[in-house]
Amino acid sequence: MSETGRRIEKLGIKLPVRNRKGKGAVDAVLKGDLLFLSAHLPINIEGTPVYVGKVGTDLDIDTAYQAARLCGLNMLATIKEYIGELDRVDYVVKALGLINSGGDFSSQPAVMNGFSDLMVEVFGRRGQHARSAMGAFALPQNVPIVVEAIVKIRS
Amino acid sequence: MSETGRRIEKLGIKLPVRNRKGKGAVDAVLKGDLLFLSAHLPINIEGTPVYVGKVGTDLDIDTAYQAARLCGLNMLATIKEYIGELDRVDYVVKALGLINSGGDFSSQPAVMNGFSDLMVEVFGRRGQHARSAMGAFALPQNVPIVVEAIVKIRS
Amino acid sequence: MSETGRRIEKLGIKLPVRNRKGKGAVDAVLKGDLLFLSAHLPINIEGTPVYVGKVGTDLDIDTAYQAARLCGLNMLATIKEYIGELDRVDYVVKALGLINSGGDFSSQPAVMNGFSDLMVEVFGRRGQHARSAMGAFALPQNVPIVVEAIVKIRS
Repeated sequence: MSETGRRIEKLGIKLPVRNRKGKGAVDAVLKGDLLFLSAHLPINIEGTPVYVGKVGTDLDIDTAYQAARLCGLNMLATIKEYIGELDRVDYVVKALGLINSGGDFSSQPAVMNGFSDLMVEVFGRRGQHARSAMGAFALPQNVPIVVEAIVKIRS
Repeated sequence: MSETGRRIEKLGIKLPVRNRKGKGAVDAVLKGDLLFLSAHLPINIEGTPVYVGKVGTDLDIDTAYQAARLCGLNMLATIKEYIGELDRVDYVVKALGLINSGGDFSSQPAVMNGFSDLMVEVFGRRGQHARSAMGAFALPQNVPIVVEAIVKIRS
Repeated sequence: MSETGRRIEKLGIKLPVRNRKGKGAVDAVLKGDLLFLSAHLPINIEGTPVYVGKVGTDLDIDTAYQAARLCGLNMLATIKEYIGELDRVDYVVKALGLINSGGDFSSQPAVMNGFSDLMVEVFGRRGQHARSAMGAFALPQNVPIVVEAIVKIRS
């Protein structure tokens, strides 16, 4: 088992197994040593949303934080599927988190931390990334958050 | 005529001719073999929006799908202007679609397919891309969708 | 003093001194000759928002333009912190501006020009960039605009 694999196991993290989308949109595209990752949703293996609703009105920050973490777990699963081993991740370059916001909710970064903290748990300092977190008016399937990212792969 | 040119002609697709923006923002920037494309709008050659309004309240999915396709056509025109021949497109790396959403509309991906399907029509499998589609609260000139993208150019 | 430094001084522009975020999100990540910059806010050195509210209802375009410019100034400060000298900026590749929009405001590009104009003031034609400007439903700390960008560094 790889070093990152052992760390994930030790953290008790289980990666979901996902199916690709097909058609025009795919889960990721590798360009040179950069893996461009599509927006990942807080869904289960069947593609059903685990979290639904707007943060601030339907969901509180703690729940949305968990949804952001699930986006990250699904992304890790995609990365593993595309490059074989998470050990091949050199570092996380950037992430954009879109938070389905209701009312006057303005703590999008606190939600996005669910994703960012996971990256640091798994990759250490190499998990630190440039980041934007903003409030979307609406998201697919009414999920509370989606996250897209760019990851640097070891050449 | 190039291979892609012939395919576009066969599909009956006509590319609009567009003027650059100038000033601080330009339609695209080439960095190495990556072409970074600005948000493209569903506008005609004069810059007038062909589609206006929010999806879910003012526009239905099918109409918004056509608007997304027009964003893609305008983007193809920009690509051609910047690199000369669409044949020089190696593959589409990623796209971000911002859908002007009203009410509780949450089928942003179905709208964005208008862009993604066009890329696959024109470029085949090389048109497949990492993708994010989210609901914006508002868009310039109240258009229903804008799409930005990154395209890999053959070196 | 560097050439860009002199130009900035001549323009009377003072760069703020900022503290890094730490944790999962950092202000920027350098990948090869590309510097990926996090969303920058119109905040002062202490991290307090200088501008607050939604454009179109709480703020007019001119004020929001200044907020966009402040996002740019903060970004220049980050760039300088990460690469030492602004002269090392080869060109600005792309920028994404998220404008906290109220009512039926749809002139997001006019707001974003506050950022884009600054880049051209400081870097000349090399400041021109691919750009997207869209209306967010909500932003962190209820600021009127955040801007993220990718900048090409001289190798």
